[in-house]
Amino acid sequence: MNSFGRIFRINIFGESHGEYTGVTIDGCPPGISLTEEDFKFDLARRKSGAKGTTLRKEDDKPVIISGLYNGFTSGSPVTILFKNKNTRPSDYNFRKHPRPGHADFAADRKYNSFNDDRGGGHFSGRLTTGLVAAGVTAKKIIPEIKITAILTEAGGSENIDKAVENALKSGNSIGGIIECRVANVPVGLGEPFFDSVESLISHAIFSIPGIRGIEFGSGFNSAKEKGSEHNDMIINKKGKTKTNHAGGINGGITNGNDIIFRIAVKPTSSISLPQETYNFESGKIEDLRIIGRHDACFALRVPVIAEAVTACVIADMVLISK
Amino acid sequence: MNSFGRIFRINIFGESHGEYTGVTIDGCPPGISLTEEDFKFDLARRKSGAKGTTLRKEDDKPVIISGLYNGFTSGSPVTILFKNKNTRPSDYNFRKHPRPGHADFAADRKYNSFNDDRGGGHFSGRLTTGLVAAGVTAKKIIPEIKITAILTEAGGSENIDKAVENALKSGNSIGGIIECRVANVPVGLGEPFFDSVESLISHAIFSIPGIRGIEFGSGFNSAKEKGSEHNDMIINKKGKTKTNHAGGINGGITNGNDIIFRIAVKPTSSISLPQETYNFESGKIEDLRIIGRHDACFALRVPVIAEAVTACVIADMVLISK
Amino acid sequence: MNSFGRIFRINIFGESHGEYTGVTIDGCPPGISLTEEDFKFDLARRKSGAKGTTLRKEDDKPVIISGLYNGFTSGSPVTILFKNKNTRPSDYNFRKHPRPGHADFAADRKYNSFNDDRGGGHFSGRLTTGLVAAGVTAKKIIPEIKITAILTEAGGSENIDKAVENALKSGNSIGGIIECRVANVPVGLGEPFFDSVESLISHAIFSIPGIRGIEFGSGFNSAKEKGSEHNDMIINKKGKTKTNHAGGINGGITNGNDIIFRIAVKPTSSISLPQETYNFESGKIEDLRIIGRHDACFALRVPVIAEAVTACVIADMVLISK
Amino acid sequence: MNSFGRIFRINIFGESHGEYTGVTIDGCPPGISLTEEDFKFDLARRKSGAKGTTLRKEDDKPVIISGLYNGFTSGSPVTILFKNKNTRPSDYNFRKHPRPGHADFAADRKYNSFNDDRGGGHFSGRLTTGLVAAGVTAKKIIPEIKITAILTEAGGSENIDKAVENALKSGNSIGGIIECRVANVPVGLGEPFFDSVESLISHAIFSIPGIRGIEFGSGFNSAKEKGSEHNDMIINKKGKTKTNHAGGINGGITNGNDIIFRIAVKPTSSISLPQETYNFESGKIEDLRIIGRHDACFALRVPVIAEAVTACVIADMVLISK
Repeated sequence: MNSFGRIFRINIFGESHGEYTGVTIDGCPPGISLTEEDFKFDLARRKSGAKGTTLRKEDDKPVIISGLYNGFTSGSPVTILFKNKNTRPSDYNFRKHPRPGHADFAADRKYNSFNDDRGGGHFSGRLTTGLVAAGVTAKKIIPEIKITAILTEAGGSENIDKAVENALKSGNSIGGIIECRVANVPVGLGEPFFDSVESLISHAIFSIPGIRGIEFGSGFNSAKEKGSEHNDMIINKKGKTKTNHAGGINGGITNGNDIIFRIAVKPTSSISLPQETYNFESGKIEDLRIIGRHDACFALRVPVIAEAVTACVIADMVLISK
Repeated sequence: MNSFGRIFRINIFGESHGEYTGVTIDGCPPGISLTEEDFKFDLARRKSGAKGTTLRKEDDKPVIISGLYNGFTSGSPVTILFKNKNTRPSDYNFRKHPRPGHADFAADRKYNSFNDDRGGGHFSGRLTTGLVAAGVTAKKIIPEIKITAILTEAGGSENIDKAVENALKSGNSIGGIIECRVANVPVGLGEPFFDSVESLISHAIFSIPGIRGIEFGSGFNSAKEKGSEHNDMIINKKGKTKTNHAGGINGGITNGNDIIFRIAVKPTSSISLPQETYNFESGKIEDLRIIGRHDACFALRVPVIAEAVTACVIADMVLISK
Repeated sequence: MNSFGRIFRINIFGESHGEYTGVTIDGCPPGISLTEEDFKFDLARRKSGAKGTTLRKEDDKPVIISGLYNGFTSGSPVTILFKNKNTRPSDYNFRKHPRPGHADFAADRKYNSFNDDRGGGHFSGRLTTGLVAAGVTAKKIIPEIKITAILTEAGGSENIDKAVENALKSGNSIGGIIECRVANVPVGLGEPFFDSVESLISHAIFSIPGIRGIEFGSGFNSAKEKGSEHNDMIINKKGKTKTNHAGGINGGITNGNDIIFRIAVKPTSSISLPQETYNFESGKIEDLRIIGRHDACFALRVPVIAEAVTACVIADMVLISK
Repeated sequence: MNSFGRIFRINIFGESHGEYTGVTIDGCPPGISLTEEDFKFDLARRKSGAKGTTLRKEDDKPVIISGLYNGFTSGSPVTILFKNKNTRPSDYNFRKHPRPGHADFAADRKYNSFNDDRGGGHFSGRLTTGLVAAGVTAKKIIPEIKITAILTEAGGSENIDKAVENALKSGNSIGGIIECRVANVPVGLGEPFFDSVESLISHAIFSIPGIRGIEFGSGFNSAKEKGSEHNDMIINKKGKTKTNHAGGINGGITNGNDIIFRIAVKPTSSISLPQETYNFESGKIEDLRIIGRHDACFALRVPVIAEAVTACVIADMVLISK
């Protein structure tokens, strides 16, 4: 299902090597000022994430084809398209010799071989252009709330540049950890029992390709803490807490402190190094060498995408709570 | 929002100290044999999780009041009630002096003080009886798929009994780590872009009170791995992989290998030790002493609840994929 | 699917001759005063609709088992149960010799004979107790909006009492026309493109058993009018119109004038007169004689049910528009 | 909300005088052969409906920009665009002097004057191109089921050509009645309680602009019938009925007989004749003369649109029932 959200609802479409990727935002309130200029900064962050890699050249220019009138959202669905220019025919037959770590095998089975297998098709990171565009729109709905995600480590190293450089040299790839912080959050967002803030954020985050884990507040470390250490003492009438092990959420509802979470991004699946894996045509395990353009560290691009889906979730919760 | 699922849809209701808690399962296929006996084992696992604690005495007897006919589900909604017998008036005014780590403050603000504040009300772990009952039903829909969750550590220790004992003695509480494995999974479950397997499982898992993190496959460790280490090589025509760092999921879709994930449970919020925290009546930070019955290690109860929500998600995905 | 609504969401369960019927209302705002007394009037209207018939004796006493605290809704799901007291074993094997006009045949096929076939099971008019209860709750959320439905004719006659009497005497049944009017409606309810006011109201109305048609404003007569006759001229700055052929709705959105619609109710399917119909056991067309309790004119009960589902739809639209 | 459907889910976007209108179909099964040629016939039916009117010239050429691969649907969302070529600036200020029968006033209030008011904006009949395109796709999913809608009368007359001609001559407009029949329907479609076949079809039909009523089977006439007349006797083991007063639906579920319904279309709101109505700028009731291109009988275009939304509903029900 390619839509998410209850009121502010995003719908993603497109394929890596199709004509367009895009997003339709339903439920966007009227009167939000929106220009194609607004998208530049975040789209550039997503793109520049690919430093040091043989980048597929795409200008990532958003074209708003509906829902905008005289520079403001009109209340009808906002559709934003990105034209794919630098498409290429499939470099290899991934149906016969599926790439390890990719969706090739699972998607082929799921869609009875009708899926678009060029460059990952609908599973491609290229679809995240639409997420970023939706995020820019969502951020404008909640201007007082600040969402900031940063890559805190890559390849197990805090020296990210160096780690990426090494990965590039060796034809390998690395993952990373992103920390996201949401400040100026109103108290009371989130809808128990099933639409807890953690439920909605994790749902959205795990739709980003390549995420392996998420933790809120003190996260996995909580499992080693005692209650007396973990509990956050309230220190004033606004509900501010001395510590923030809960990541700003109690009982699935925001408590007014910053929402804090971290996500783990796996190393990019496509690497230049040859990999032994099963060839369905020959029936043997054979070396697969993936020719083509790929990031050595997809995690570099993820912060702005994580911010975007978080903004969509928060905007939706704010619209529901009103 | 107290419902979850697309076809197999569960609806939770009730409060800790209300008359009943319960669940309505909509979209349950007709012809599933179901007796109140079927629920005993999993409900007992949930209850016995509370070993060593001054347990609230509840018999947890499920009463099926709709959707069952001649011992089989009829295709109409299945409603299962649990009568609360051992209810008590609120031990303390948690609106004025909210408990650290609890939803008291956030819920009071969200619901304008109309929320039921007795024992956590709708936020209580007692609501998980309904989740377990739904899980039992879900498991019967997918008998070939085996879901097993175990507590692998508590309070940072693999000697769980000892850790719980120490927590009890000191009037404190501890958290834990649960590992869940789903075996015999068909290839192709999960619906990109937003209903990835990880998205749906994490959404459901974070609805369980007290969860702080979730990771799939090699999880947070993936961030330190190289692509050549992390990628799972396919070794036969069924798609079996040599390793399972992906946790059985590629591109959000099951690949036929076991789904594996781990969740972090925080230490129980209620502890006997006094805690300094803000008193909204006096306007001062004061000692709060929580009298009453509480688990020293809520994580002990979580495995069967994690299995239950996972079963609901998988059953729903199976019904959609048909 | 047994739930309806986006924010104010009702979930129906139960069977005619099961232990309970009921409804869970999710998304009900906190702070709505609610007593079991509040339900009496509308439940009595629903029941008294069965005048002149050998009525199944049920006291229709609502029991609120969740979501209410100190007399006010708490913000968690409100579950209301009705105990079925006067249940009886099936009077006849309707699987073998399905009743004309009933769901017997279609339901048997749909649910592979697992459906509860006693008295219509989940398809019974008895389920409408839950609808009425939800409607009472919805009306309290929108106290300024007045919803009034009346039976304007039955059996083609405006002398309703007489028509019902004749039907009873002859062992036959009759249908009727209900007109519903919603006054004090704010401008701007309804969400194009698909959640037009007419779409949502008709969706809800056709969930009531036995409805054959719905028309808004001048309805089917519109098809014979000219634009110059049909168009409603605006006469003041509040948007009041001289006529109301549009039924208070333009482009799927309320225009501030009264919403007006009419619904057609078919004659009750169960009649005492023998009916020739196919017997699946004998493979022959044979006389079927339905023994038991049934209304001669189910339409008598429908006004309060129509009001109820309309109130649910309007309350939901109001909550969304805020 | 601009989406509809549970599995086969359509999302509409665009404005009358924006750059594009379009539709995204989510949940379309993989492997459906689809060419732009497939859309021609139904799109031409929609267009030619405008006979005798000064037609806005649009070529209605569908462009499929996602979800199609090698001529077959791939399982990812299918997005179809229609470029608006013949757009024009607003002919008149409808915010100040709203057109009777149009959404001008209600939409202006709902969207705080941010709505696109050119030619009806998002409320325009032009949006129905997307519905027709979705319908073509839906019909290909259920090739064995035949859906046929015809205009049976217009302006109260069975001589439709003559009635349209008269309306044109007089600068007025007329409505009409459409009858839709669905043949070869499997038994058991529809999901009680709320997703009855009538509920879903009426929901979809009332999203088409200008619909005033819908009735199934013997419809409003049922209200005048006796049970002994109305009940449809089953005559063979397939469930075939002698009559079809139920319109092929019992208890909200298809019974295998043809689904039959009729819809009432109001006369087109825009007419050339001057109309007295309130001018919000002058504060007086004044003559409004609508210059521009409009159909004398929009009902002529509705049959193919009615077929389209019906096909979407049936395809969705079929996919759910599998």
